[in-house]
Amino acid sequence: MKKVFLILIAAILFFPLSAQKEGTIVMNDVVRQHYRQEILIPDIPGYVTLKCDFHLHSVFSDGVVWPTTRVSEAFEHGLDAIAITDHIEGHPKKMPGQKRTQYDVALPTALSSGIILVRAGEISRSMPPGHFNALFVKDVDALDRADVMDAIGEAVKQGGFIIWNHPGWRKQQPDTTKWWKQHETIYSKGWMHGIEVFNEKEWYPEAIRWSVEKDIAPFANSDVHDFYENYYDRERYPVRPLTLVFARDRSEEALKEAMFAKRTAALFFNRLVGKNEFIEPIIKQSIKVEVPHLYQDGWIYFIVKNLTDIEFTMVKKDSDKSELPARLTLPRRASIVVRAKQHKGQSETYTYILENVLTGVEQYYEYKISVQ
Amino acid sequence: MKKVFLILIAAILFFPLSAQKEGTIVMNDVVRQHYRQEILIPDIPGYVTLKCDFHLHSVFSDGVVWPTTRVSEAFEHGLDAIAITDHIEGHPKKMPGQKRTQYDVALPTALSSGIILVRAGEISRSMPPGHFNALFVKDVDALDRADVMDAIGEAVKQGGFIIWNHPGWRKQQPDTTKWWKQHETIYSKGWMHGIEVFNEKEWYPEAIRWSVEKDIAPFANSDVHDFYENYYDRERYPVRPLTLVFARDRSEEALKEAMFAKRTAALFFNRLVGKNEFIEPIIKQSIKVEVPHLYQDGWIYFIVKNLTDIEFTMVKKDSDKSELPARLTLPRRASIVVRAKQHKGQSETYTYILENVLTGVEQYYEYKISVQ
Amino acid sequence: MKKVFLILIAAILFFPLSAQKEGTIVMNDVVRQHYRQEILIPDIPGYVTLKCDFHLHSVFSDGVVWPTTRVSEAFEHGLDAIAITDHIEGHPKKMPGQKRTQYDVALPTALSSGIILVRAGEISRSMPPGHFNALFVKDVDALDRADVMDAIGEAVKQGGFIIWNHPGWRKQQPDTTKWWKQHETIYSKGWMHGIEVFNEKEWYPEAIRWSVEKDIAPFANSDVHDFYENYYDRERYPVRPLTLVFARDRSEEALKEAMFAKRTAALFFNRLVGKNEFIEPIIKQSIKVEVPHLYQDGWIYFIVKNLTDIEFTMVKKDSDKSELPARLTLPRRASIVVRAKQHKGQSETYTYILENVLTGVEQYYEYKISVQ
Amino acid sequence: MKKVFLILIAAILFFPLSAQKEGTIVMNDVVRQHYRQEILIPDIPGYVTLKCDFHLHSVFSDGVVWPTTRVSEAFEHGLDAIAITDHIEGHPKKMPGQKRTQYDVALPTALSSGIILVRAGEISRSMPPGHFNALFVKDVDALDRADVMDAIGEAVKQGGFIIWNHPGWRKQQPDTTKWWKQHETIYSKGWMHGIEVFNEKEWYPEAIRWSVEKDIAPFANSDVHDFYENYYDRERYPVRPLTLVFARDRSEEALKEAMFAKRTAALFFNRLVGKNEFIEPIIKQSIKVEVPHLYQDGWIYFIVKNLTDIEFTMVKKDSDKSELPARLTLPRRASIVVRAKQHKGQSETYTYILENVLTGVEQYYEYKISVQ
Repeated sequence: MKKVFLILIAAILFFPLSAQKEGTIVMNDVVRQHYRQEILIPDIPGYVTLKCDFHLHSVFSDGVVWPTTRVSEAFEHGLDAIAITDHIEGHPKKMPGQKRTQYDVALPTALSSGIILVRAGEISRSMPPGHFNALFVKDVDALDRADVMDAIGEAVKQGGFIIWNHPGWRKQQPDTTKWWKQHETIYSKGWMHGIEVFNEKEWYPEAIRWSVEKDIAPFANSDVHDFYENYYDRERYPVRPLTLVFARDRSEEALKEAMFAKRTAALFFNRLVGKNEFIEPIIKQSIKVEVPHLYQDGWIYFIVKNLTDIEFTMVKKDSDKSELPARLTLPRRASIVVRAKQHKGQSETYTYILENVLTGVEQYYEYKISVQ
Repeated sequence: MKKVFLILIAAILFFPLSAQKEGTIVMNDVVRQHYRQEILIPDIPGYVTLKCDFHLHSVFSDGVVWPTTRVSEAFEHGLDAIAITDHIEGHPKKMPGQKRTQYDVALPTALSSGIILVRAGEISRSMPPGHFNALFVKDVDALDRADVMDAIGEAVKQGGFIIWNHPGWRKQQPDTTKWWKQHETIYSKGWMHGIEVFNEKEWYPEAIRWSVEKDIAPFANSDVHDFYENYYDRERYPVRPLTLVFARDRSEEALKEAMFAKRTAALFFNRLVGKNEFIEPIIKQSIKVEVPHLYQDGWIYFIVKNLTDIEFTMVKKDSDKSELPARLTLPRRASIVVRAKQHKGQSETYTYILENVLTGVEQYYEYKISVQ
Repeated sequence: MKKVFLILIAAILFFPLSAQKEGTIVMNDVVRQHYRQEILIPDIPGYVTLKCDFHLHSVFSDGVVWPTTRVSEAFEHGLDAIAITDHIEGHPKKMPGQKRTQYDVALPTALSSGIILVRAGEISRSMPPGHFNALFVKDVDALDRADVMDAIGEAVKQGGFIIWNHPGWRKQQPDTTKWWKQHETIYSKGWMHGIEVFNEKEWYPEAIRWSVEKDIAPFANSDVHDFYENYYDRERYPVRPLTLVFARDRSEEALKEAMFAKRTAALFFNRLVGKNEFIEPIIKQSIKVEVPHLYQDGWIYFIVKNLTDIEFTMVKKDSDKSELPARLTLPRRASIVVRAKQHKGQSETYTYILENVLTGVEQYYEYKISVQ
Repeated sequence: MKKVFLILIAAILFFPLSAQKEGTIVMNDVVRQHYRQEILIPDIPGYVTLKCDFHLHSVFSDGVVWPTTRVSEAFEHGLDAIAITDHIEGHPKKMPGQKRTQYDVALPTALSSGIILVRAGEISRSMPPGHFNALFVKDVDALDRADVMDAIGEAVKQGGFIIWNHPGWRKQQPDTTKWWKQHETIYSKGWMHGIEVFNEKEWYPEAIRWSVEKDIAPFANSDVHDFYENYYDRERYPVRPLTLVFARDRSEEALKEAMFAKRTAALFFNRLVGKNEFIEPIIKQSIKVEVPHLYQDGWIYFIVKNLTDIEFTMVKKDSDKSELPARLTLPRRASIVVRAKQHKGQSETYTYILENVLTGVEQYYEYKISVQ
């Protein structure tokens, strides 16, 4: 009796037979499990780090997915907040009479899965001034105005947060990445709250420069039209392009407050871009150097840990003449052993450039390792 | 000079920089490549083996993808023909005024990628008689009739091919898998051309029985509503559920002729079901036993090759008293070495049961290995 | 100038060219990166949870790998301590004159990578009494004694910790899993410190029973002879079979103390086996139920988080008549949304059986979820 | 009764319970299956294309694997022939009194799995002249001579085939890739039968030049010391570095004849290098352009198929002014749709450069696509 019981338990664990009935056999192992996997990026003192993607499309304009799919993707990919920003003007796939209801359609899924869904739309004009996302608006249909300034103005009037999208997009800026006079106008009115330094698969050093010099909040958004995993190579890059928002708590209100206060950073395919005041506390909690575990023949051995889902690429600073490796790759959630020529009792500081962490154009974060 | 040239070639191969311009950097390696991978299943004498999925949904009823996605999935997954069978009645996601135009929307993509797209719809009623796919119809809207018999009759009048879908679906047949009198009516009118022996993730031994006893063409269809790879575990099971159609050539006409002539078989997650007249020639060209490469100490060593994308599971017949392994797994496109206690010059025949190949209910294909 | 610099940075990130010289091109992207990935299993109050594998082979007996490979595998797989337990008697691959020096050969790698390496050997006799690992011994060669009791006695004299290996191994116990009188002798002398409840790919409910009834420390060891990833399917099961040892700190001394104090548990392919005093604090820190994020139409929605690398399988207790799902799978490091029929303000407790967590034979851990 | 039978069949397919006995439970799904997967590279007229790796190490010198492992890897990776070329001089891991018996140890596994095993050793000296593999020798121990010329001469006397290994290896040629006077001597004696144009993870354009100008057979060998999959990223690059040998049949004699007749080519990580007389027939059978399947609006659509396991990278020739894509990637065993601006009835020829196929230094193969 016992024997049989044990065997059945084993079988059930790997092949749940419970669903069987006469004449029908269910194969549960052929389907994919769905669940959320958190992205490991540390919070910073005083704020939680919300992982967001504020530029997504659905069949309500030229995307190929139903709006609810954007929410389930966000849940599974470990995001906290998203906006479905279907084009307000021009929507080749839109059915006759269709309303801009992507938000309403997706909301129940967002509520049940705990994703913050921001009502939004994309004002989509030729360059200048190009495309702009309007987030936190109340009536997307009202943004369908002939003049682009009227459209943006209406969004602002509704309390909207405005982002200049893909400022270097080849289709709109074929040879250069230029700040036009229309952008100056929008900026001087105080309407340019954010700017994408990354979009889809390209990033814009020029936009990083504007972000720094003009103090505009940086964003990294996917602008994905297809199912996420059909477009991106998620096996190689498990973390989506993300706008990190440093908010007081995980709520839509706190999110909005943080965005208007410009507490954002951009993370795209292991590249982290933002102001030093946000980058520094992230790095400090991301990379840990452990106490050396071996001193031998004049060498010291210690472990460097990456506690996050960002892969770091470290290049030794030219001025550092130590025997440490010239280049270290710190894969996500991984540790490596590093050794340096150093005697027990000595105390040394080594300097690496984090090639994937930028606080400005060509401003790489310098990471110091102190070992004694 | 030469040095520089060589280095650039290397860089270009792994990181195409061609798309760069001032102020913008494109990361081409973050996106997924799209291409077609053929499924290896042999043709049989006189016919090509077309790989088909005749039950798919889109946002034109309760699916979550745009119709074109079904075509690109089919292209990438190595299929030859599909039908997008959105529900004719009841379509919770349909927008007001929307027509049943999934075929027209998807056609251009089908033409450019060489996929045979069959115009179709799903007549979706409560049990009895349940759901039926109508393939090769000319006017899907005309199938929206109050009486289910009228709807099926209209499809037949249009030259349609009718399949009884998921006959054992728990939602419609909670405790049994039953053939109702309505099915008898449809069958006796000559309207039940095909029956799903597999749907989504379940298969119906009872439907296999009806398929054999009543000579109805067997089908295996995915009935997928989500993106294929979001629903199924494609890493573990790279081959989709498929209806194999043995056609004179790869054209819609030949496909239709073959289906009405009942030249189909069902393949789902390595399980192959069909009449022996189709199964036998497939198996004969799928598994190859090579001439022994070693005779040693009374043992003979030979290679067994699987030339297909179907994984075979072979269990030695009880009556076979040889020293061959009791169980062999032949992964797709793989070879294994098998040894038997047999002397050089001897000639022996061994018999394995192919557990994954059925020519009827509990009728497993017997595979004989002759070695000399 | 700037433009060129930015482009080069991008190229370097994905294809480090630094190693190039005239006439030679290095392709760094073809090799695999090596690093440590921590296994997430919580510590318990007062102790750190050391992840150990105390049964490994190398070319110093019938394994196929050099001893250092066992250490690098342990480092990369996130282990804390291992023992290379080559067979003391019989060693088909041993070269003439070879000493049992696997420990000495592997030690430098262990020291530099911070892995605790335990000196050990496997006393390998026919049944009864079978095979025994002797850990923490000082002179492995001295265990090569004609009489098995002398061999074990010598190990004990050296301060060794003795484990009965694979007590149900078919090759030695073909039809039963039996406790012989020799085991009684060893046990009554106080020499049987541990017992494998899991070895390689099989587990022994009978050994769990003995472990509980006779208070013998349970072990799960791989006994791997091949390269780890060549033997096991590590993609499907990223966590190795592990003996968890609850030690005062991460040192060989603390490890030894904990083992003799019987503070161990066994973890193999998501199955966790041990005394409730160790299992309970692990589970309490492994699974977290969050405060409900939605109350709607009489349903309450909350998130259940698995903070570990153990996949949990939860089956609702028969007596639980709630509307919760009958079965939950909690993949590693994942969260799922669960909903229950419960009104805001109510407070309910639900009970799940953890099918993969055993505190005795057929004693499954009961997990209570309290929601209000 | 029937019901139960069907359920059991389903369970067995996914979880073979046959191995269970009282008190013990076997988990067969945790181990990895082992089988051979053929590499798809076409034969050429008159010859079979043998896939070989003639540079491998084991614990008989500084490798970390037992010799049999090299054979099972070769079987599983689809190879036809290998040589285990342990260092003749200097063998840090060799045990006292150990003989150079790697061939003898591995032979039984080679025989039973049908792998051609070539007796060999590596003459390992400082530069000049560096390292040389001696293949097809009869007595490896006899190659242990003080003078390197004596060692090579002895190998030649035994009928050996000599390959200059990793001629550009940084450790031996730190700044240049140079042909020393010692190489001139070996070459002029007719002893330099082959040269590695690829070794481990680097390739040598300079060696390709020598191979062409001096008519020396090109080789690509892995020189792997670790387990193959522990060293290389086999997920990204499923095909090993290979020396292709065009032989009359699959036997050691034919292999040797072909090598002395210089019928070899090198294939490493999708880069194919060799004389045009071998490359051309390979390419002709590797890439197939199908008859266009659509003519529409002045565009013509056709499929380009890659029938092999080599990924091809095609760049349109500068002189080609057509509207075809500037760059095509043809993944292994994949098809893509290409379209050109061309009217029905027209006939056009397009020219692509195969960036990954070289018939000499900077001599890329030109692939012409004729479409009508």
